[in-house]
Amino acid sequence: MSTATTERYTVISADCHAGGSHEQYRSYLDPAYLERFDEWRARYRNPFRDLQDDTRSRNWDDDRRLTEMDADGVVAEVVFPNTVPPFFPTGVVIAPAPTTREDYELRLAGIRAHNRWLADFCAAHPERRAGLAQILLNDVDDAVAEIRWAKEHGLAGVLLPGVAPNTLEPLFSPTYDPIWAVCAELELPVTHHGGGSSVPDLGRYPWTAAMYIMEVGFYANRALWHLILSGVFERHPGLVFVLTEQGSSWLPETLDRMDALHEAMVAGHFGGELGPSPFVLPRRPSEYFAEHCFLGASFPPPADAEVFHRIGIDKVMWGSDYPHREGTYPYTRESLRRTFAGWGEADLRKVLAGNAARVYGFDLEALAPIAARCGPTVDEVATPLETIPADATSPAFTRA
Amino acid sequence: MSTATTERYTVISADCHAGGSHEQYRSYLDPAYLERFDEWRARYRNPFRDLQDDTRSRNWDDDRRLTEMDADGVVAEVVFPNTVPPFFPTGVVIAPAPTTREDYELRLAGIRAHNRWLADFCAAHPERRAGLAQILLNDVDDAVAEIRWAKEHGLAGVLLPGVAPNTLEPLFSPTYDPIWAVCAELELPVTHHGGGSSVPDLGRYPWTAAMYIMEVGFYANRALWHLILSGVFERHPGLVFVLTEQGSSWLPETLDRMDALHEAMVAGHFGGELGPSPFVLPRRPSEYFAEHCFLGASFPPPADAEVFHRIGIDKVMWGSDYPHREGTYPYTRESLRRTFAGWGEADLRKVLAGNAARVYGFDLEALAPIAARCGPTVDEVATPLETIPADATSPAFTRA
Repeated sequence: MSTATTERYTVISADCHAGGSHEQYRSYLDPAYLERFDEWRARYRNPFRDLQDDTRSRNWDDDRRLTEMDADGVVAEVVFPNTVPPFFPTGVVIAPAPTTREDYELRLAGIRAHNRWLADFCAAHPERRAGLAQILLNDVDDAVAEIRWAKEHGLAGVLLPGVAPNTLEPLFSPTYDPIWAVCAELELPVTHHGGGSSVPDLGRYPWTAAMYIMEVGFYANRALWHLILSGVFERHPGLVFVLTEQGSSWLPETLDRMDALHEAMVAGHFGGELGPSPFVLPRRPSEYFAEHCFLGASFPPPADAEVFHRIGIDKVMWGSDYPHREGTYPYTRESLRRTFAGWGEADLRKVLAGNAARVYGFDLEALAPIAARCGPTVDEVATPLETIPADATSPAFTRA
Repeated sequence: MSTATTERYTVISADCHAGGSHEQYRSYLDPAYLERFDEWRARYRNPFRDLQDDTRSRNWDDDRRLTEMDADGVVAEVVFPNTVPPFFPTGVVIAPAPTTREDYELRLAGIRAHNRWLADFCAAHPERRAGLAQILLNDVDDAVAEIRWAKEHGLAGVLLPGVAPNTLEPLFSPTYDPIWAVCAELELPVTHHGGGSSVPDLGRYPWTAAMYIMEVGFYANRALWHLILSGVFERHPGLVFVLTEQGSSWLPETLDRMDALHEAMVAGHFGGELGPSPFVLPRRPSEYFAEHCFLGASFPPPADAEVFHRIGIDKVMWGSDYPHREGTYPYTRESLRRTFAGWGEADLRKVLAGNAARVYGFDLEALAPIAARCGPTVDEVATPLETIPADATSPAFTRA
């Protein structure tokens, strides 16, 4: 074989999910909550298919996880949560915020157990895992303290919970400035993952789930304009913000709309009916995006990847969404061929690894030996996929 | 002149705004509320520029309104509200729902005064005006009673208020079935106008208005999937629904997304995590749109008009948005030339008048003499616009 055929890509997934079992979380939980945890656990019925069957051990079983990711050609991962932490009503990326002080305190104990489990999970393979600490937004002081704990214990970033409208302060509220400040100070990227919505109870009507699916993208995407247009990046020049698993094609159009709105504001085209003295950013919204923001593009089909060039090749990070059903596992190699066969190697190395290394602090040299063993070859990815695997269900295969 | 050069279009605006002055509303108000009205009026400060200066009489001055619309080439209008009714905090299309019983009762008296004013305003020129009755969603029995009153007094449809999330029941709630039922029974189209949002207080932060502008489209558009996907048109086969002043380009893509979601639901691709026994519509979402829904496309720039063919030429109604600053007045003729110069006459007659006549009950024969006097000629509209009027501010001119 020539050098070209054996040269391999380093593939980092900027979107994977993991979590402890309830037994594991129990061992990380503040003992003051153990009795209530056992009561809660006895009552809790998990609604997730993939946390009931034999696939669930992918969340915590080191051997299984590494074996499967190796076979899939993925050498490192950004670790989002997946399992249901103690005292949560459902998975964390879709759970509405706690509404009572008691519920808040219990759930805070729950995410602390997760974060402590996660620090150990990542420390077992530190070159391969960048863990994101969970926080809650109900109490900013508590959130700041948890973020400091996360930094001290090797976690690589902070995950914002989904924010449903009119329950907590919106993300554009200055209430959250101490969170942005500490993340900038500690150089922890803030990541927002699709999943929140304005649908508080998915089982309320038989059609509520359909509403959720229609709206979940919007409720993720809006974090971008909430932060940019309220001046968060103007006040926190060191802050890095990542939008993950919430599509790609909406982004250029949204930046255009923000820039047009900014231009209108600069020109003074605002009536008093929209509030007194509107705040006008000193720079264009797209400039803040270019300097501060990144997109975690999970299981991108070809049409999404076409948009990456408009967004900026330095701004986009590929993700597998392992171990979710909509993710590319076990067909990541095929998915890369379908989506990226026509791409140049230099650009693709950024999207598959370079950008994630820069944002989340992966050491590409430490990953090189693993990639040399199991990464997809450059020639392989450059070969267009002729046949989609028959049992592939990911949008990476089913969408144009 | 040949016949061709003198033949004219009948132009109906499916989106105009009018309302009484506070003095007029006072005369229509239930006398039980007069004392409180005078107190409220003494305190109320109107935030709208165009309700403070000398343009405000366009809302109620018959002579001025008809003279200006004639000059603009528009012979008839669907009348949405504009001024601030008694006891409202702001204009009705952007006002959040009342949150206390007392506020609700006062505002109900306010919109009843408006509806009674509107019935007289329309009766003065019945062939030229189709008025939309305002309702509130806080009390469904009250809303149904007001809708019956509106039908008996010649109003042509019902305007839904904007629904902010998590304050009232969402539009997909079965709570509202009696409203859909009475509108279907009385053959009154239900119209939803852009303006609601999840931003309850536009003046709260200096950047809140920017959030409103970024999100107002979504909070309007979502009424479409809330009604279709919850089966409203399945339960109410006679119901007609109109989406007005909320863009056009989002619509085909949204119908595609709904159809794809429906296809996935039919195939059973729903996990238990999204709710038990999801409701699966017996027909595709786009079929309900085709049978029940219409788009009120206000001040469309050329790119919006290109989408009309994808939406369906029988489904779209042009609107001027008179007397708003973003509307096409006084340059409706120029706007029609810019947007529609390349169109065929038969299609354009539907978009400019035929569809609105069908939906809101205008009598095209009764309008013909007025159109013969002041409508734009077919040849005029077919002549591409070379120079945009220097003081034109409508998106009809400023957008591609």
